[in-house]
Amino acid sequence: MPKSTPPEAESRRLQMADIARLAGVSTSTVSRALAGSKLISEETRTRVMELARSLKYNINIGAQNLRMKQNRTVGVVVPYDPDTRQHLSDPFFLSMLGSLADALTEQGFDMLVSRVDASELDAAAAPFDTGRVIGIVLIGQWRHHDQLNQLAARHVPIVVWGAQLPQQLYCTVGGDNVAGGELAGAHLLAQGRKRIAFFGDINLPEIGQRYDGLCNALRKAGMAADAGLLIPASFVPDGGRLAVEQLLTAGVAFDAIFAGSDLMAMEAINALRQRGLDVPDRVAVVGYDDIQLSSYFHPPLTTVQQPIQEAGRALVASLLELTEGRPAPSLQLPTRLIIRHSTV
Amino acid sequence: MPKSTPPEAESRRLQMADIARLAGVSTSTVSRALAGSKLISEETRTRVMELARSLKYNINIGAQNLRMKQNRTVGVVVPYDPDTRQHLSDPFFLSMLGSLADALTEQGFDMLVSRVDASELDAAAAPFDTGRVIGIVLIGQWRHHDQLNQLAARHVPIVVWGAQLPQQLYCTVGGDNVAGGELAGAHLLAQGRKRIAFFGDINLPEIGQRYDGLCNALRKAGMAADAGLLIPASFVPDGGRLAVEQLLTAGVAFDAIFAGSDLMAMEAINALRQRGLDVPDRVAVVGYDDIQLSSYFHPPLTTVQQPIQEAGRALVASLLELTEGRPAPSLQLPTRLIIRHSTV
Repeated sequence: MPKSTPPEAESRRLQMADIARLAGVSTSTVSRALAGSKLISEETRTRVMELARSLKYNINIGAQNLRMKQNRTVGVVVPYDPDTRQHLSDPFFLSMLGSLADALTEQGFDMLVSRVDASELDAAAAPFDTGRVIGIVLIGQWRHHDQLNQLAARHVPIVVWGAQLPQQLYCTVGGDNVAGGELAGAHLLAQGRKRIAFFGDINLPEIGQRYDGLCNALRKAGMAADAGLLIPASFVPDGGRLAVEQLLTAGVAFDAIFAGSDLMAMEAINALRQRGLDVPDRVAVVGYDDIQLSSYFHPPLTTVQQPIQEAGRALVASLLELTEGRPAPSLQLPTRLIIRHSTV
Repeated sequence: MPKSTPPEAESRRLQMADIARLAGVSTSTVSRALAGSKLISEETRTRVMELARSLKYNINIGAQNLRMKQNRTVGVVVPYDPDTRQHLSDPFFLSMLGSLADALTEQGFDMLVSRVDASELDAAAAPFDTGRVIGIVLIGQWRHHDQLNQLAARHVPIVVWGAQLPQQLYCTVGGDNVAGGELAGAHLLAQGRKRIAFFGDINLPEIGQRYDGLCNALRKAGMAADAGLLIPASFVPDGGRLAVEQLLTAGVAFDAIFAGSDLMAMEAINALRQRGLDVPDRVAVVGYDDIQLSSYFHPPLTTVQQPIQEAGRALVASLLELTEGRPAPSLQLPTRLIIRHSTV
């Protein structure tokens, strides 16, 4: 686009050209028809107006020319696992949807939510390919690194909530998981805990980084991670309870748990309570996310906070950079430790 | 539409007519162009194809004719209060969004989420008016009865989550709030509680019906409702704690609380705990909704369950009836009492 043309005028010119081409008339005919000129036949005028409307151009007839309404919709994709077809009930994901809806509303955008089969993630681009959205925010990086790279390689504007990884073509916005894990570990060590169990599947990028952070904290304290304290708990309901049972069955000594999510931490605390193991006296427990209910829980949960409201705004801001042809480097949002009674 | 024409063929005929009108050619030219016929000039063929694509028709060229992809998007509107511009963080609303996303995915639909200013609810119809969605599900009936009636009066297909009210033109799907309130009241009375405080703004339709249900239970037990026990708590964060303080300051005797939402109940329990008032020994507490975390709470919360997954499916089913021109009577989903340790 020549630098001398203001972007809005340029965009208007392009849109008029579209209408002209589709109607089989000249651009000047479109311009006159939209302005309501009597030089254009009634039939052509009606046809052009309808076409403009169909293409979602916002016609302000009285104002003698047209003001084009650009596409103001962003796609939000939440993949689902085809095997479990799990419901969208994770409180962190749901809060993220709410935060995105708020951030988009602030900017005058709508949000087109679609769930796609995680094994066919290419379908995530469909709303963009068909022109329904200007770009896509994807929540649920999981193990889809290669598929996400493929989407980015074919220039789909896409921002992913998750961890930054090596050889990454797509833009991520996420919490600083390594720092978050280190904060949790350092806090537990400062409370005198020495046997910290970790609950989570470290093959998931974000969880793996949280575990790395815990290992950093241990190393700085001159300690090594004990593989027997790493429990590959998954995000299924009951994952936290099952992890506690696994730990107790194995007979491994532990005085603290760092769980990969708040939900998992709460399940773990309830399971410990049922076994008569007091939290925090016998076992200190730290969660991750700081979902709304962690402050309501009893005992209120110490956790690593992910800044949900900022996350929505940051995802939208990065996506808008991409859609405007500017680079959007991946971004890590700061995390902080919220100390409550489950550890002190 | 004549009964003898299959709906799909009829819809295809109408869509071809649209393309023909907009391109300024005949329907048979469109039909031939989409089939790739060499009888049609390259220029016209390209123009018709592009138009069909712009109008989101799914062209299967190889198959010698076209299969029209109908609009498969449903609008979901969550109004916001222009004064507070509250974030979308209520766990019940968020779960409802998740449930709708799941129900729509099951049926092959996408979900276009928009938040609109509650004082200008007419804007909720914009995605329908511009042809982007086939109909609208609105979450947040609040006090918008008249505005919702106006939307229904101008034939916007709309289904609202909420309470059925007198003089209602729009379709609602909601829990049976009167029955839910009565279940909660009868349970507390059966536990020997006699002074049941109610927390909630009874001017909101759903909350008013829950209170009516409580009054029914009292009446059946030969008791009258005490106005001093009705605390107009609102859904702001901290509403439950403030209501407890109001009750204690007023010096009204109470041995039970029925709160208008689980969140409010949890806040109330935490406030009671801080005052050294044991739950359930000193005060029994019942919530409403059965959000995921009420079973994790300590003590686990007795509550009236709203069937979230069924709610999403029912809202979608009613909307599809409306969009297909069939009547969709308002619907009340059964509620049930989940008894946990906050009352027994």
